[in-house]
Amino acid sequence: MSMVCLSDFEAYARKYLPKIAWDYFAAGADDCTTRDENILAYKRIRFRPRMLRDVSVMDIRTKILGSEISFPVGIAPTGFHQLAWPDGEKSTARAARAMDTCYIASTYSTCTLEEISAAAPGGLRWFQLYIHRNRAASQQLVRRAEALGFQGLVLTADLPYTGKRRDDVRNGFRLPPHMKVKNLEGAFEVCKMSLTFHSLRWHVPHERKTTGLDPSVTWNDIYWLRSLTRLPIIIKGILTREDAELAVKHGVQGIIVSNHGGRQLDEGPATIDALVEVVEAVRGRAEVYVDGGIRKGSDVLKALALGAKCVFIGRPALWGLAYKGEEGLQDVLRILQDEFRLSMALAGCASVSEIGQHLVQFSRL
Amino acid sequence: MSMVCLSDFEAYARKYLPKIAWDYFAAGADDCTTRDENILAYKRIRFRPRMLRDVSVMDIRTKILGSEISFPVGIAPTGFHQLAWPDGEKSTARAARAMDTCYIASTYSTCTLEEISAAAPGGLRWFQLYIHRNRAASQQLVRRAEALGFQGLVLTADLPYTGKRRDDVRNGFRLPPHMKVKNLEGAFEVCKMSLTFHSLRWHVPHERKTTGLDPSVTWNDIYWLRSLTRLPIIIKGILTREDAELAVKHGVQGIIVSNHGGRQLDEGPATIDALVEVVEAVRGRAEVYVDGGIRKGSDVLKALALGAKCVFIGRPALWGLAYKGEEGLQDVLRILQDEFRLSMALAGCASVSEIGQHLVQFSRL
Amino acid sequence: MSMVCLSDFEAYARKYLPKIAWDYFAAGADDCTTRDENILAYKRIRFRPRMLRDVSVMDIRTKILGSEISFPVGIAPTGFHQLAWPDGEKSTARAARAMDTCYIASTYSTCTLEEISAAAPGGLRWFQLYIHRNRAASQQLVRRAEALGFQGLVLTADLPYTGKRRDDVRNGFRLPPHMKVKNLEGAFEVCKMSLTFHSLRWHVPHERKTTGLDPSVTWNDIYWLRSLTRLPIIIKGILTREDAELAVKHGVQGIIVSNHGGRQLDEGPATIDALVEVVEAVRGRAEVYVDGGIRKGSDVLKALALGAKCVFIGRPALWGLAYKGEEGLQDVLRILQDEFRLSMALAGCASVSEIGQHLVQFSRL
Amino acid sequence: MSMVCLSDFEAYARKYLPKIAWDYFAAGADDCTTRDENILAYKRIRFRPRMLRDVSVMDIRTKILGSEISFPVGIAPTGFHQLAWPDGEKSTARAARAMDTCYIASTYSTCTLEEISAAAPGGLRWFQLYIHRNRAASQQLVRRAEALGFQGLVLTADLPYTGKRRDDVRNGFRLPPHMKVKNLEGAFEVCKMSLTFHSLRWHVPHERKTTGLDPSVTWNDIYWLRSLTRLPIIIKGILTREDAELAVKHGVQGIIVSNHGGRQLDEGPATIDALVEVVEAVRGRAEVYVDGGIRKGSDVLKALALGAKCVFIGRPALWGLAYKGEEGLQDVLRILQDEFRLSMALAGCASVSEIGQHLVQFSRL
Repeated sequence: MSMVCLSDFEAYARKYLPKIAWDYFAAGADDCTTRDENILAYKRIRFRPRMLRDVSVMDIRTKILGSEISFPVGIAPTGFHQLAWPDGEKSTARAARAMDTCYIASTYSTCTLEEISAAAPGGLRWFQLYIHRNRAASQQLVRRAEALGFQGLVLTADLPYTGKRRDDVRNGFRLPPHMKVKNLEGAFEVCKMSLTFHSLRWHVPHERKTTGLDPSVTWNDIYWLRSLTRLPIIIKGILTREDAELAVKHGVQGIIVSNHGGRQLDEGPATIDALVEVVEAVRGRAEVYVDGGIRKGSDVLKALALGAKCVFIGRPALWGLAYKGEEGLQDVLRILQDEFRLSMALAGCASVSEIGQHLVQFSRL
Repeated sequence: MSMVCLSDFEAYARKYLPKIAWDYFAAGADDCTTRDENILAYKRIRFRPRMLRDVSVMDIRTKILGSEISFPVGIAPTGFHQLAWPDGEKSTARAARAMDTCYIASTYSTCTLEEISAAAPGGLRWFQLYIHRNRAASQQLVRRAEALGFQGLVLTADLPYTGKRRDDVRNGFRLPPHMKVKNLEGAFEVCKMSLTFHSLRWHVPHERKTTGLDPSVTWNDIYWLRSLTRLPIIIKGILTREDAELAVKHGVQGIIVSNHGGRQLDEGPATIDALVEVVEAVRGRAEVYVDGGIRKGSDVLKALALGAKCVFIGRPALWGLAYKGEEGLQDVLRILQDEFRLSMALAGCASVSEIGQHLVQFSRL
Repeated sequence: MSMVCLSDFEAYARKYLPKIAWDYFAAGADDCTTRDENILAYKRIRFRPRMLRDVSVMDIRTKILGSEISFPVGIAPTGFHQLAWPDGEKSTARAARAMDTCYIASTYSTCTLEEISAAAPGGLRWFQLYIHRNRAASQQLVRRAEALGFQGLVLTADLPYTGKRRDDVRNGFRLPPHMKVKNLEGAFEVCKMSLTFHSLRWHVPHERKTTGLDPSVTWNDIYWLRSLTRLPIIIKGILTREDAELAVKHGVQGIIVSNHGGRQLDEGPATIDALVEVVEAVRGRAEVYVDGGIRKGSDVLKALALGAKCVFIGRPALWGLAYKGEEGLQDVLRILQDEFRLSMALAGCASVSEIGQHLVQFSRL
Repeated sequence: MSMVCLSDFEAYARKYLPKIAWDYFAAGADDCTTRDENILAYKRIRFRPRMLRDVSVMDIRTKILGSEISFPVGIAPTGFHQLAWPDGEKSTARAARAMDTCYIASTYSTCTLEEISAAAPGGLRWFQLYIHRNRAASQQLVRRAEALGFQGLVLTADLPYTGKRRDDVRNGFRLPPHMKVKNLEGAFEVCKMSLTFHSLRWHVPHERKTTGLDPSVTWNDIYWLRSLTRLPIIIKGILTREDAELAVKHGVQGIIVSNHGGRQLDEGPATIDALVEVVEAVRGRAEVYVDGGIRKGSDVLKALALGAKCVFIGRPALWGLAYKGEEGLQDVLRILQDEFRLSMALAGCASVSEIGQHLVQFSRL
């Protein structure tokens, strides 16, 4: 099997992962419209490539919140990496460090933050946080992450309850017995519940006892988080100019335009479409990133042209892991890197700083 | 078979109903364009979900014409429920009451109004009326409904003649001998004709003798209806601002934006598209509801965001009946309820009163 | 086989006609884009149906150039009816008379004008004319038609050369030996050539010797035609406001908006789209008709709503002939008539005079 | 097999060419979106055909940079014609001369410029140039071309690096041992590298050693080219008004709007869409041509209506070669010529000078 582009890794993962794991990673909410729109929306954006520029020396490095990365693609937070590869998040951390980019470790990792740190010392990592009803547990996670050298705190804002992913309900998805959400282990009893999904009604918001996450979180909790840590706070899951404005007002350093890979509210906007209005509202007062639907280096170029400072990949990283663990994820990142560099050159940009909105237009279709 | 979403019930019904019954329920007029557009039009509406709102306590109750229901989804009037389940409309009535919502019983029920009432005493029910050439028969129906405690009178405005549903013509659709349109039995001879469909020309409006319905009904007949009953009058089948204005002017209390499930004039507007202009024209002078194309809880949220007070489901209710009678219909309603609540939460609304047009936008596609 | 709608007749004809005949009738130019667009364009038009109008008495009669017809659907000129049914145009004439509508007989009929007249005395008929290099031959045809009681002269304007219909080239289409273009027989030698199609280059305009039609015809030839006959002149094949204006200026009585069933220049406008601009340009100074893509009674209603006085059907008439000759064509017309009447009623119109542009809107899609 | 239209030749080539050759010719970059859009974009343009014009005498000749050609279709530069037919570019040159049109010979020919010239003395030919790191080599090529009577110099501007064509990577595409890029043979060592593609990373711009082309070329190099030759300079690969303006400013005589057949940056504009803005920017100060997506004579007519002076065909020429070498390419050109003449006539134009923007409109779809 020749691994030429990201869809080759997708095909591999679909073929070799256990169905229940593939389904979990692939799942979108309801009709999966938003999951698929994330990809389709990129195709509606057309380049306006410029010719005869000197692109003999290409510089694709960039900085996010002051840290340099080798190219503007990081690893989005996704859960349960052991479902894709035995070493789980340790492999992810190693691949990200090898490729000199940022890895956002999920609360729902199957390795502890300590294991992740030990696996790839010195790598640039951010920690993704859900706020639990048990605030002490969340506080403890934040402090562990900061102590371990994580350099950013990513608050996921779009999951007061879990979206309805039909295949997970059909499969009765749960982690295999030998995997655990290790970061939460022992920390609080209630959260075991949140990882056990029951039949038809598992997704129902009014059955409060089944989830450890706190659906009462509001913008004021940003202040609470701020009081816990000196780390920059990045908010993930923003899709409107109104919320972008609120995020800036509450002092976040970064915003990840995200719809959770189309796994939460179906039929919201594609992230690349939402990016435009968020960037416009933020007016440079915070860094804006985007995830969802990135499948080619040219998608990265489009996102940057529309104002993203960096993109994050979710499922493609898992496909890379499923292919060959750390090495497979490096392959995925390297392909994206090569494609991004080539797209830049063919569009007439020799460095990231030359990328701008003049490079793209929305197709009439 | 795992019943996770409404299309699972559809698949069940398609598989287990007799073909002639499935075809009758599924039928759309002519090319079925409008039937299908009802669904597709929802997909062209995108949410603008808001984050970090306190959605820990969800309130999804609403009121229609002063009566509280558990969530803004009622049962639209459809005929011949015994084709789906032996107990027919009695099961429908029981399920609606169990789920604490409104059931609009059809003139073309296979149980009498009396049987329906007795099956679920105390349930909130409206009665759907066609005006017959024999006005005395219609008058008698209205009085029976009022006496039995029905709380609203729904006048169907879009069926001066029956639409051309090709499969019904091909199948020579008629009720099996053991089923009857009981509400009309004995009341007038002519209406037997209306339920016997003949070959090619059954749908032809100029063959007056074949139908008991009165194609000469006009807006003035609203006054006649008003003279018969103190029940609120809801008009069903309005698709334009002009007719919405006329409905208000003639004093109706409610309007159901409907195209009869795409079974009458093909290639009219999808109901969710028509809703916008009707709501705008009505300017709060009557309650506006919508039916057609509701397949997910998020569709309900979209309809409410665009100004509907409540939606009504037609075919999905029949699929529920076909699955397990009263219990199956409850399953359908419960799934919609759970999905609606979850969609609200994920869009950032804790109560129905927070739903508004800011939540949606029409897609460029 | 149950004949419920026009596509049933299409399916029949595709199945039972010889392939070479089916292909000839079905053919569109080049990629057949315009042929198919003629149909698709109707689907982009949405009705705005009005409710509660008295539609108990329906009047669907109309007049074209002063002659009353039973409903606004006539038979467009198409060639070689014997390919569809042994009696050819004689059956067509009988069916049109039986249904009390207008039949436009083609120059390329396989019966003579005399045979057509004799088959259905008293029927309303127009004669379709191509202008030949041999003007005397054309003049003779006009005079024969007028003498035989044809009541209109339809000049086809869009065939200076024959369009490139790939299947006809592949099939080496020619009439079977026992069929003849009888109207032209003996009249002039050159025209035999025009009916013999050779291999690859048959369609090439610069090979003048292969066609009897005159590609040098201009608007001034309308004056010449006018000098030959007192019959009203209808011009067929107009697609732009500019040409509509010229047609009116040159004194035609009627315009048929037509793209020759998509058989001439591919990728011109669908006729229903072109109708709008032609009607606007004509401003009532001539009657405007349309052909192409009519497949349902509601298509007729749309065409009338957009300003057509009458529509003409081409291929559906041939399918009817292929099904059962005169009787089959009557079936087709009767279905269209019933569907048209029903559509009118369901849209809230009791007579043709109530049909107007308010009934339709162009879909956003 | 009946060769009626260009897709017949495509089907033939797909069937009979070795897979690696077919894939190489067919390849588009990445998802092949732009390659396919080149074709689809033509379908979104609708004609506004005019009737009753005298089209008895058709004149389809035109001039490009002062040289008359038999119709406005030339042969675009494509590489490796021996992959399609043993005689390679010699056959191409002969066919172009036979059809009295212009052939742009590629740097990457498998025959030398001298062989090409000798094969068809007196034919109108331009030479396509890539600028190599080894400027002396490029200079030598220009001088050879000029000496051999080539009448134009086409600088390809859109290939600082080769686009990522997945199938070529998968196939490990390279020329068979018996074929050579003869024009470059011996001229410089480094360019052998550029024709040997290695595994996954062959396309990576920063691996400079693998390509002989110079990615540092800028607009100033036009002045350098100008200093080498008196031939008119045509720049190929322009897609924006900004670059069109720069091209004019740097004194080019012609611009070919091209996206390299969708083989370079995927998801740029279709060439026919880009043509409009380029023509507008150029305002007649240079001739504008277009390639990509031409499949029918009517596509040529559309391109001319939108301002192109001439179009060039790439893949269809290769299909013609693959079919029957020189003779097959003549067939392709003759079909295009016949179709173009017929389209003009059916649109109401008797000569190229009558073609204008009034003939087309962009479809709403």
